[in-house]
Amino acid sequence: MKSARIQYHGDTLAVAVNDDGHPLLADGTILDPEQVTWLPPATGTMFALGLNYADHAAELSFKAAPKEPLVFVKAANAYTGHNGRSWRPDNVEYMHYECELVAVIGKTARNVPRADALDFVAGYTLCNDYAIRDYLENYYRPNLRVKNRDSTTPVGPWIVDRDDVPDPNDLRLRTYINGELRQEGTTADMIFDVAFLIEYLSGFMTLSPGDMIATGTPKGMADVQPGDVVDVEIEGIGRLRNHMVSESDFFRNTEE
Amino acid sequence: MKSARIQYHGDTLAVAVNDDGHPLLADGTILDPEQVTWLPPATGTMFALGLNYADHAAELSFKAAPKEPLVFVKAANAYTGHNGRSWRPDNVEYMHYECELVAVIGKTARNVPRADALDFVAGYTLCNDYAIRDYLENYYRPNLRVKNRDSTTPVGPWIVDRDDVPDPNDLRLRTYINGELRQEGTTADMIFDVAFLIEYLSGFMTLSPGDMIATGTPKGMADVQPGDVVDVEIEGIGRLRNHMVSESDFFRNTEE
Repeated sequence: MKSARIQYHGDTLAVAVNDDGHPLLADGTILDPEQVTWLPPATGTMFALGLNYADHAAELSFKAAPKEPLVFVKAANAYTGHNGRSWRPDNVEYMHYECELVAVIGKTARNVPRADALDFVAGYTLCNDYAIRDYLENYYRPNLRVKNRDSTTPVGPWIVDRDDVPDPNDLRLRTYINGELRQEGTTADMIFDVAFLIEYLSGFMTLSPGDMIATGTPKGMADVQPGDVVDVEIEGIGRLRNHMVSESDFFRNTEE
Repeated sequence: MKSARIQYHGDTLAVAVNDDGHPLLADGTILDPEQVTWLPPATGTMFALGLNYADHAAELSFKAAPKEPLVFVKAANAYTGHNGRSWRPDNVEYMHYECELVAVIGKTARNVPRADALDFVAGYTLCNDYAIRDYLENYYRPNLRVKNRDSTTPVGPWIVDRDDVPDPNDLRLRTYINGELRQEGTTADMIFDVAFLIEYLSGFMTLSPGDMIATGTPKGMADVQPGDVVDVEIEGIGRLRNHMVSESDFFRNTEE
């Protein structure tokens, strides 16, 4: 079972999605997925991991993987949905995609032991947590210029129910630029897996329904440019498409 | 003019507040401020500054003040309202209050020049951005254990309209523990003032109505303990009270 949030004929709707990826209205009407506006499928806080794959940490010239999760908070302006547009700022050298598995919290979690942790997951989605690396003085917790530009974190398209994801630690991740495979990895290589992260975070703070944990990306960085179509894909979860545009194109079309 | 959000008889209400600090219902009824539950007066994202007063940076043994604002994002679980309870984790050595002026954004702000920046402020409130310093490996952008425990960021009590704050750069800040003055400073000593911060943030991302900029704290750190009543006060804005309790007391009373 899959669920999504869409805009359709001016309404914001929570809908089911069928096996073919088509949103369903409450009356059973099947919608064309190209004719709706896909929204991020959850609306809570996103807690995002840095350096959670050893091969990616090595790629970034870190000598050792972190011993404790490096977690930062994303702000609401950063999100966009499936098929949306992100923008590349003028005059930057490196804007990299990051294909990430996202666990969506389903019930209030506080002091949850690892063995029970996945019971607190509603389901899984994916995100592309673009990074503008020019501004990254410190990988430890990236600053807002790196990770919080408007609409530079596509999330979606939908949430796949937890019960339909037998093992979140054994999923292939892939990123394509204009249809060409550029990044490939497996969630088996996470340093801190979903169950650990829920135990860790809920050990000092409360996670609420709708909160999201973006679990980091494996190696395989590449630059993106305006005009690129960027797809991040996780086996058994979905494929999230994003259209890169220039700064001027992005803001020209969103001017009020 | 002051505005607040309260819970009263089970309803969440946006209300005006009179000069004596009493909430007013729409029909003019004056409420007892001790008989309502005060909520944080805004509901957007909080962007919080680190090391934004030179004397505080020196107190923390920094040789030089930052050359660019150090900004981190707070998550929703961290907030509480006026007269609320915060908790001190067991087995920590240092939990410090931080009295801070908070600018609340009133209209969508993108690429706003400094000269116009204060027009984008709806008004001002204050917060006490407690820090649990034991976990602070890196002052640069404090991690979640330091700055994102449940209910450890009181915000409020109300928003004072921008027009009633002639100069946000000339306000006295004071913190009292159990009535005793422990911290005193002035917003004149901010390294990056409110207008600069709006220009800076809106230069690379959009600020939305209800977003908050917590502008940092001057020197004067002191530890707080369960049982302490902690008041942060800013001249012309208000006085925000918080009751410190132990970890066990806090979670005993919030168990579902």
